[in-house]
Amino acid sequence: MARIRILTETDLREVVTLDLDAITCIEQAFAALATGDVVMPPVLSMAIAPFNGEVDVKTAFVPGIDSFAIKVSPGFFDNPKIGLPSTSGLMAVFSARTGMLEALLLDNGYLTDIRTAAAGAVAARHLARADSTRACILGAGCQAKLHLKALSLVRPIETATIWARDPGRAMAAAAELSRDLGIEVRAAGDPATAVSEADIVVTTTPATAPVLQADWLRPGQHITAMGSDQAHKNELDPACFARADPYVPDRLTQAQLLGELRTAIEAGVVDAEKEFAELGAIVSGRASGRASERAITLADLTGTGVQDTAIATFAAGRAHAAGAGVDLST
Amino acid sequence: MARIRILTETDLREVVTLDLDAITCIEQAFAALATGDVVMPPVLSMAIAPFNGEVDVKTAFVPGIDSFAIKVSPGFFDNPKIGLPSTSGLMAVFSARTGMLEALLLDNGYLTDIRTAAAGAVAARHLARADSTRACILGAGCQAKLHLKALSLVRPIETATIWARDPGRAMAAAAELSRDLGIEVRAAGDPATAVSEADIVVTTTPATAPVLQADWLRPGQHITAMGSDQAHKNELDPACFARADPYVPDRLTQAQLLGELRTAIEAGVVDAEKEFAELGAIVSGRASGRASERAITLADLTGTGVQDTAIATFAAGRAHAAGAGVDLST
Repeated sequence: MARIRILTETDLREVVTLDLDAITCIEQAFAALATGDVVMPPVLSMAIAPFNGEVDVKTAFVPGIDSFAIKVSPGFFDNPKIGLPSTSGLMAVFSARTGMLEALLLDNGYLTDIRTAAAGAVAARHLARADSTRACILGAGCQAKLHLKALSLVRPIETATIWARDPGRAMAAAAELSRDLGIEVRAAGDPATAVSEADIVVTTTPATAPVLQADWLRPGQHITAMGSDQAHKNELDPACFARADPYVPDRLTQAQLLGELRTAIEAGVVDAEKEFAELGAIVSGRASGRASERAITLADLTGTGVQDTAIATFAAGRAHAAGAGVDLST
Repeated sequence: MARIRILTETDLREVVTLDLDAITCIEQAFAALATGDVVMPPVLSMAIAPFNGEVDVKTAFVPGIDSFAIKVSPGFFDNPKIGLPSTSGLMAVFSARTGMLEALLLDNGYLTDIRTAAAGAVAARHLARADSTRACILGAGCQAKLHLKALSLVRPIETATIWARDPGRAMAAAAELSRDLGIEVRAAGDPATAVSEADIVVTTTPATAPVLQADWLRPGQHITAMGSDQAHKNELDPACFARADPYVPDRLTQAQLLGELRTAIEAGVVDAEKEFAELGAIVSGRASGRASERAITLADLTGTGVQDTAIATFAAGRAHAAGAGVDLST
């Protein structure tokens, strides 16, 4: 007989929030990835075309973390028509020593949201200028809001703009974030101006064609692109790569297939064989980040299995300490 | 709020057994695989070398089945030293229309055992001579026992021999199977004789070098090799491929990487590009199976995601009908 812990989304929202502990947890995961002893297989991805769906499975073994997570992320894009969310899913946590199931985190994607925004904070912490006060977010969804909160935890953000294709959604998100963060957040009518005036820009859209043009960029900025996690997505004008230094993928091999780098390679702006230091290399001091106050730094976040293993273990630990969830004997 | 059904191994053992319904379920899954509309990504496999472990994830979308399963199979081979089973794992069942989690089957590998043996029955039903009465099983573990039971459901098996490297285990398995199946089952001292005298031979070992030699084979036999599901495993002397016709993989691309076919290609006995009809093509009548009473037929079973989706949906349906398991609101 084994006992496993089952945690619902409600349980998990009570014990895990986007805070500095969660950001540090993800930062350490990236540092581990840079050591080379992490095992992170390519993403398993399955399209279910008849129902406009897809499902991704991510995992990683991180030496020093006693568990590993298998994360299943379905995305079914017709769901909103019948009142269901597009994304859902769960993480299963296993002992890295025995493979025995330890916990089921029925988070419906909540922990993915947290670890994704936390990665944005890690990128900003290591690449954005320390005096960054102005943020611009393209997109007005869940990740737009979480990324602005994440930036506020690591940089002295004073004002922010939100741009989205739907101005009403941008206004609603701006109002909510003003209230939640206690800073001035407004909806931007013109993305070019909003981007140009910011110190940190985060793109959080599901776009399949550029929403950020290279000539909007200004010296000294940091850009994080996190929307592209599939081979058909693209948020950045490939010419951004000619202006960015360093360009920093979360995982080079994944960015070549799924990230902004894919589009830049296809456009001929970047050589397909070119090596780039990953975020973990910069976090762990193995590679250098921002070289000057005038550099434009660019992080390309596709989402990695090490983040999933890290946040799942973090959540399971918090839940254990809080006595959250229910045990099941199997 | 969604409701999911959670089923433990105990629940699942009560509602699913190796019977003709389970065999038909797996047979239909192979037939679907032959239609070409199935989506079955390559296996996600992660080695955890520091703890002598590995974890595989399999899945498939099968048109006509309203759910799909994601199966996680850990194998940690030092576990018996601390009193734990080597293999465990679970299947998560999702709606194929919305991606929403429907059920968690905490089966510890039980359903994999059933669907694996059921595939052996499907292979025998479509490839072995109808008058096959004598079985020989190499190996004495769980799959050895289940495969003999599976054969008995589809062919008029009257006698069987069990050979294993450990004679004591072979004797214990033979005694158990004699009692359970009501036929004469004895432990074989010499595998060459045991194989030569059988109508159907099934190899069920974790061997990494051949346990079955080509010159033991006799005209009219059917061979199923099911032990090789990893790139380092091998049960058959590659020369068996020169004698077998047809050779039938469960999934050609997988057999090239993980099955007996891999070794035969490496040995130069089979051309790496050679096409072979899969089991599903034979089940569905798109390809022909046994051509004569004297042919030696060979099935190479690596284990497929369609079997997992099929057995998981079958189990969830049986559990629903029986009111088994517990519901959890998430």
